Amino acid sequence: MSFRIGQGIDFHQLVAGRDLWIGGVKIPHEKGALGHSDADVLLHAICDALLGALALGDIGTHFPDTSADFKDIDSKILLERSYQLVQQKGYRVINIDATLLLERPKIKPYVTAMREVIAAIMGIGTEDVSIKATTMETMGFVGRQEGLSAHAVALLEKL
Amino acid sequence: MSFRIGQGIDFHQLVAGRDLWIGGVKIPHEKGALGHSDADVLLHAICDALLGALALGDIGTHFPDTSADFKDIDSKILLERSYQLVQQKGYRVINIDATLLLERPKIKPYVTAMREVIAAIMGIGTEDVSIKATTMETMGFVGRQEGLSAHAVALLEKL
Amino acid sequence: MSFRIGQGIDFHQLVAGRDLWIGGVKIPHEKGALGHSDADVLLHAICDALLGALALGDIGTHFPDTSADFKDIDSKILLERSYQLVQQKGYRVINIDATLLLERPKIKPYVTAMREVIAAIMGIGTEDVSIKATTMETMGFVGRQEGLSAHAVALLEKL
Ligand SMILES: [Zn+2]
Ligand SMILES: [Zn+2]
Ligand SMILES: [Zn+2]
Repeated sequence: MSFRIGQGIDFHQLVAGRDLWIGGVKIPHEKGALGHSDADVLLHAICDALLGALALGDIGTHFPDTSADFKDIDSKILLERSYQLVQQKGYRVINIDATLLLERPKIKPYVTAMREVIAAIMGIGTEDVSIKATTMETMGFVGRQEGLSAHAVALLEKL
Repeated sequence: MSFRIGQGIDFHQLVAGRDLWIGGVKIPHEKGALGHSDADVLLHAICDALLGALALGDIGTHFPDTSADFKDIDSKILLERSYQLVQQKGYRVINIDATLLLERPKIKPYVTAMREVIAAIMGIGTEDVSIKATTMETMGFVGRQEGLSAHAVALLEKL
Repeated sequence: MSFRIGQGIDFHQLVAGRDLWIGGVKIPHEKGALGHSDADVLLHAICDALLGALALGDIGTHFPDTSADFKDIDSKILLERSYQLVQQKGYRVINIDATLLLERPKIKPYVTAMREVIAAIMGIGTEDVSIKATTMETMGFVGRQEGLSAHAVALLEKL
């Protein structure tokens, strides 16, 4: 058996006039995440964990924010493409564990939907995709609701 | 063999008039960590890494800070309960590695005691529990001694 | 087979009048990282991931910043020594995945050189060393270009 470990971290500003996409789910909120794509912080962290586990570069090298191809793109497409690269290397995901750092709103009501979206893209079970959340206790830019962040780890296995 | 990876991150404010519990050990300091429970940032990050590895939710879903049951609770109890959930799924911990982000005080004198407390709760050896520490070089809310944070990863194996 | 997981996090201030060493490579920039050693945030995070995987302490315990021995030391030496400790325990690195948090400059042009330096120190392939990078979207002390950070994970296997 051959295993690999990956990790990913992402950050986006929260601003008025944008939608808030997290984990492939649109969440009602008075602010959204700013970015070139749909700015889905959780999917981006997972993409980076997948790419990083196999030293395939990062989300910025594969989907540059200077390319018109990725303007306002649905990050589910980026996750799908990242996972295709993993599969082309002969690997599959054993499990993914992620934490979202966000002060508001509460994302608990959306976690099941996020896990289903992510698991479906990779063709794995929802029990292999974990999404946790924490506030930053009003501290820092996350605590001041100026931004959000996500951290993810992934364990891969060679098929 | 069947493996799983988990990660956890936690944050608490540092305020006067509270005890400072870290890794199950009470540390003499002029400030303590603010929270609904004893606010043990390291044990909370480890709980989340254990729960996350098996997609069992997070510390907020199992031990909500809106419940009187967990008011001022000893976080060692939360770790014990989290690990019971891991064991009920048929898994054991291979190893845990964590980093505490804290400007002051130095926690080195307490690390051995912390590792013993954590290892004993899970019935594993102290050589399988690693606790590291770093300052944030006076930057950010940790650097200003307004708060502290902990990051943990866990590797689990199916029995 | 026997596996272990490790993680490391490091932070340094960015100041004028210092060189900027990242991943063992000197990067032209108007600021450098402040620290007792050469302040290579990426190598330090990797050292901590290696040490942490085997519960061997952390970079601060092995290479204290109060020791004249480590003043301005090349962090490649610290990584070499950390990996020797791993090897003495009978382990090897399967893979390392890291993310650098830095607003400026772009490190993409240097990533290949960094991976070669790190892989050579540990005698592993460059395909087993992943270095990713992200900005913090102008937020926090990284976003204000006052500092930088690195996060790393490592998967080890007993020989
Ligand atoms: Zn992003
Ligand atoms: Zn907590
Ligand atoms: Zn350092």
